[in-house]
Amino acid sequence: MSEFVYGRQPVLEILKAGQRTLHKIWLLEGTGGDIIQEIQNLARAQGIPFEWARREHLDKRVQGHHQGVVAQASAVAFQTLDDFLRQLKAAPALIIALDEIQDPHNVGAILRSAGFFGVSAVLVPKWRNAPVGETAARVSSGAIEHVPLIKITNLAQSIMDLQEANFEVIGADTSGEPMESYQPGKRCAIVFGSEGSGLRRLVRERCDKLLAIPGAGKVASLNVAATAAIFIYEFRRRSSIGRAPVL
Amino acid sequence: MSEFVYGRQPVLEILKAGQRTLHKIWLLEGTGGDIIQEIQNLARAQGIPFEWARREHLDKRVQGHHQGVVAQASAVAFQTLDDFLRQLKAAPALIIALDEIQDPHNVGAILRSAGFFGVSAVLVPKWRNAPVGETAARVSSGAIEHVPLIKITNLAQSIMDLQEANFEVIGADTSGEPMESYQPGKRCAIVFGSEGSGLRRLVRERCDKLLAIPGAGKVASLNVAATAAIFIYEFRRRSSIGRAPVL
Repeated sequence: MSEFVYGRQPVLEILKAGQRTLHKIWLLEGTGGDIIQEIQNLARAQGIPFEWARREHLDKRVQGHHQGVVAQASAVAFQTLDDFLRQLKAAPALIIALDEIQDPHNVGAILRSAGFFGVSAVLVPKWRNAPVGETAARVSSGAIEHVPLIKITNLAQSIMDLQEANFEVIGADTSGEPMESYQPGKRCAIVFGSEGSGLRRLVRERCDKLLAIPGAGKVASLNVAATAAIFIYEFRRRSSIGRAPVL
Repeated sequence: MSEFVYGRQPVLEILKAGQRTLHKIWLLEGTGGDIIQEIQNLARAQGIPFEWARREHLDKRVQGHHQGVVAQASAVAFQTLDDFLRQLKAAPALIIALDEIQDPHNVGAILRSAGFFGVSAVLVPKWRNAPVGETAARVSSGAIEHVPLIKITNLAQSIMDLQEANFEVIGADTSGEPMESYQPGKRCAIVFGSEGSGLRRLVRERCDKLLAIPGAGKVASLNVAATAAIFIYEFRRRSSIGRAPVL
């Protein structure tokens, strides 16, 4: 399966990461700049065909703001949780899991934070979650190419699988204890719930611990992507977890 | 000047905050639920007229997803920096400033984080910034009603005004020192630059210090709203700054 991806940074990141196959790249006639040059250099080095094309040619392939760059790429690769855990062996890891997050802007922003802090993997439920599609890929600013993605069908079940593999599973929940009271261990998974209603009951119950970010203002809650950024930052800061071990 | 605002939470927050005048509220016939009930109760208590209306009636007023609630409100109130500093006197404060942030989703998300952590005020440049309009208001989840907004015309000048009022001005910049090495004082302002190119040169030069969030992954940078969330969280956590003093 292949799809069209677009935008300078997203296409550049695919070339850099080298995980997905690029079938072809189209560049808008008359565009230039450092990133366009880097895209050409990498495409040449990797033997990927690219061609200069007119605006209509690019516009008909994608609906978004393509910035003069469109590419046909193989679909984003997902792993299974079993395979991931087998490869991980006993190494330390920080994993995050998304429980019914609907907005692809939020999914993309969370993936970007995960990529920035070197999170080991992101669990994405198969059915109900916002698809990891073009919008999420674009907002992730290329992170989608670097962060191992694990597709799961039943998050409550996957939480038990993680617990069996010695992960402590933390639910981000406004009813939880203050995050600062917690000292992360070597294997942690953090679960983030939907924008409107947070974690589902069963998911919340399966978590080993619920933690909250303490606020001090008149606004009741943070955006889920902001919550995830702070959690990942704080866990990285406080924990002994090193870089992502299986990348 | 007045404008149409929409969505359950945004309208509810305006009613709760009581800073802006609501001229009228329209509710979609047949809608119910706790928030709709609370909106009715508050509107009654404050003598604000509301009426049940058909979908077409709501749809023609706003273009976004109104969730059955539309209101006509006075425009968002901005202060001047002079007035704010005069009222603040010598109190501790944490201020944030936006330098050319374009995307209203990011502006809204930053305002929400500012509201959640009780930031004292947000400086919004008058011309070049994404307007604090409907999208930003909606994404801010009502924070726009609670966080004092200061409209400025020249950020480089305002930085000097803040420095004169004993603020230490921090630029969030990937070239800066690790944020963790820094101990915030009683009066801080943090400046965030645009999504694409960060802080402008002049703004960067005026800052007392540049700080960065250290990453550990393959993705080069965070989304600006994630950056702001982490900075505000970390400054609140480490500093002696209490709640917003002038609200």
